Amino acid sequence: MSEDFVRPVINELKDYVPGKTPKDPGVIKLSSNENPFGPSPKALAAITKEEKNLHIYPDQKSILLREALAKTLGVADSSIIIGNGSDEIMQLAAATFLRPGEEIIISEHTFSVYEFVARIFDGKPVFVPLKNNEQDLEAMAKAITRKTKMIFLCSPHNPTGSYITMKQFNNFLEQVPDNVLVIIDEAYAEYNSAKDFPTSLKYIKEERNVLVLRTFSKFYGLAGLRIGYGIAKPELTGYMFRVKPPFNVNRLAQVGAVAALEDKGFLTKTYQANLEGKEYLYAELDKLGLEHKKTEANFIFINLKRSADEAFIELMRQGVIIRPLTSFGFPEAIRVTIGTKEQNKKLVAVLSKII
Amino acid sequence: MSEDFVRPVINELKDYVPGKTPKDPGVIKLSSNENPFGPSPKALAAITKEEKNLHIYPDQKSILLREALAKTLGVADSSIIIGNGSDEIMQLAAATFLRPGEEIIISEHTFSVYEFVARIFDGKPVFVPLKNNEQDLEAMAKAITRKTKMIFLCSPHNPTGSYITMKQFNNFLEQVPDNVLVIIDEAYAEYNSAKDFPTSLKYIKEERNVLVLRTFSKFYGLAGLRIGYGIAKPELTGYMFRVKPPFNVNRLAQVGAVAALEDKGFLTKTYQANLEGKEYLYAELDKLGLEHKKTEANFIFINLKRSADEAFIELMRQGVIIRPLTSFGFPEAIRVTIGTKEQNKKLVAVLSKII
Repeated sequence: MSEDFVRPVINELKDYVPGKTPKDPGVIKLSSNENPFGPSPKALAAITKEEKNLHIYPDQKSILLREALAKTLGVADSSIIIGNGSDEIMQLAAATFLRPGEEIIISEHTFSVYEFVARIFDGKPVFVPLKNNEQDLEAMAKAITRKTKMIFLCSPHNPTGSYITMKQFNNFLEQVPDNVLVIIDEAYAEYNSAKDFPTSLKYIKEERNVLVLRTFSKFYGLAGLRIGYGIAKPELTGYMFRVKPPFNVNRLAQVGAVAALEDKGFLTKTYQANLEGKEYLYAELDKLGLEHKKTEANFIFINLKRSADEAFIELMRQGVIIRPLTSFGFPEAIRVTIGTKEQNKKLVAVLSKII
Repeated sequence: MSEDFVRPVINELKDYVPGKTPKDPGVIKLSSNENPFGPSPKALAAITKEEKNLHIYPDQKSILLREALAKTLGVADSSIIIGNGSDEIMQLAAATFLRPGEEIIISEHTFSVYEFVARIFDGKPVFVPLKNNEQDLEAMAKAITRKTKMIFLCSPHNPTGSYITMKQFNNFLEQVPDNVLVIIDEAYAEYNSAKDFPTSLKYIKEERNVLVLRTFSKFYGLAGLRIGYGIAKPELTGYMFRVKPPFNVNRLAQVGAVAALEDKGFLTKTYQANLEGKEYLYAELDKLGLEHKKTEANFIFINLKRSADEAFIELMRQGVIIRPLTSFGFPEAIRVTIGTKEQNKKLVAVLSKII
């Protein structure tokens, strides 16, 4: 087999670094921003009921889920496209819009899948540094060239927890030409409590070139089922539907997501516990003298000012798995998921031992 | 938004035509080659047990399933890659190996996803006609040029049910240069009863450039879960792992597939009922004077010699959904799934009414 048997990009791709999963059931996993209260109980009930139909192919257009989401979000069904996780929506966007050599603007130190999908379709990632550990929208707008096709934003931002305000987003969009698609990853948006958090759906109703990404993996507790979605004007989703594989979303994910959307009790509990958890952790981290950022998500960025990889091992030995941010380009910072009360207490206890 | 905002290929892609799903529960669906006995009961038990973990991301390398498959198939774990259905493995192969303009040889009148994945990565599909409604391996070998990168074979063949014999496959491989990847879709292989059906895994052990595709959607009754796999020499799967999205296979699919592999009672029943069903249907179709092909799969190709689309509507009104093969390029033929005894009887009864 000759060396050039594979596409050139294959030799440039890096392995994805996932959050570690504990084998010992006594160990707490705070590394992947999963819902500490488990899956939505209403989703589980719907899934159990649907199991008997698992020999039948799923609905290839996820019609019932798109109807439910359209009602919840106040957009047209045709504005919504469902994926095998929101990761797949990113990939569909690249497959639909990205020509070889076109540029994708991505902020440094963030979720690696943005770069991954750009490279798979031979796009050119253009990285813009953070400013005070936040996305530098001014610099990102300045990075736009005639070759720019897409811009990836992330709000709340993974892994810092910061967010883009409505005013910042408005200003930014004014600087983006019509032939550039702005993709805003709102995987953690349901957790936000900021009054000036942008209602990004407004821009879709205004028919801007904006694609909003959401997921059922975090707030709804369905990471293991793989289901996320994109929202954009129907012209854009219509093109993306053409590259969507026919049966990309499994049956249980479709029915589970519909039920999770309506699981008011679970969602309220998730939201409130996260608010309380973050206030508790802010106060305790302050007491420990650990530098941390304010978060609008279900995780906190902590600057340990020491090797994150070493701290990760020490914390794991104490029974808590966190995410060292070395692979995000922060070798001295960690990201911790806001857990249940007991988990947060344990986290504080083990952090106090390793600093 | 200017016209060239999307990639040129987007304008060439056709919509996938799925088998129709009945809304009325009394209607029998024989259009998508699903297992008429439902999902594997052992898979269902494993799935129910796993539900409580649905808030946790799945294992990104499907390690337990790959171990189980490796043991069952007698190949190395590293030879196996799991996908969100075997459709995804086709897409990963194209993403890994296909350069723009390279040719993919595909036989006419077959599963549309082969062409789809070729086009998504700007490959050039080269179609070779069937000969006596079977894949013409001689003509396919002759179609190889210096630009050929991949060849898609399908055995048992969808939608005719024919298969490639060991001798044919050996002869064919001798004519394929080393720099061409032969992808053989064996979605229906578990149903075969032919003594000279090729053991394609032999070629993988010989380190040939062969990628075998299998699925849990048919024989194992898990179409709704989305899980399939590819088998190839580790050098090839290693490259494909680089383009695999991190969490492409959901948790329930992983545990369900492991359990289904071991569900001997269910698999034996599925195999035997299919054998008996096809002999029954051959005899009844002969009595009705309906031309049909011998099948090594769980479906039968029937040449109605009248409009398949019209027959489809008439049969649906009688309570049976079949697949008209118009979208496969056979406007006068249908494909029917071999069902349970009762379903096969009903199929014969309604067919007798419309001829």
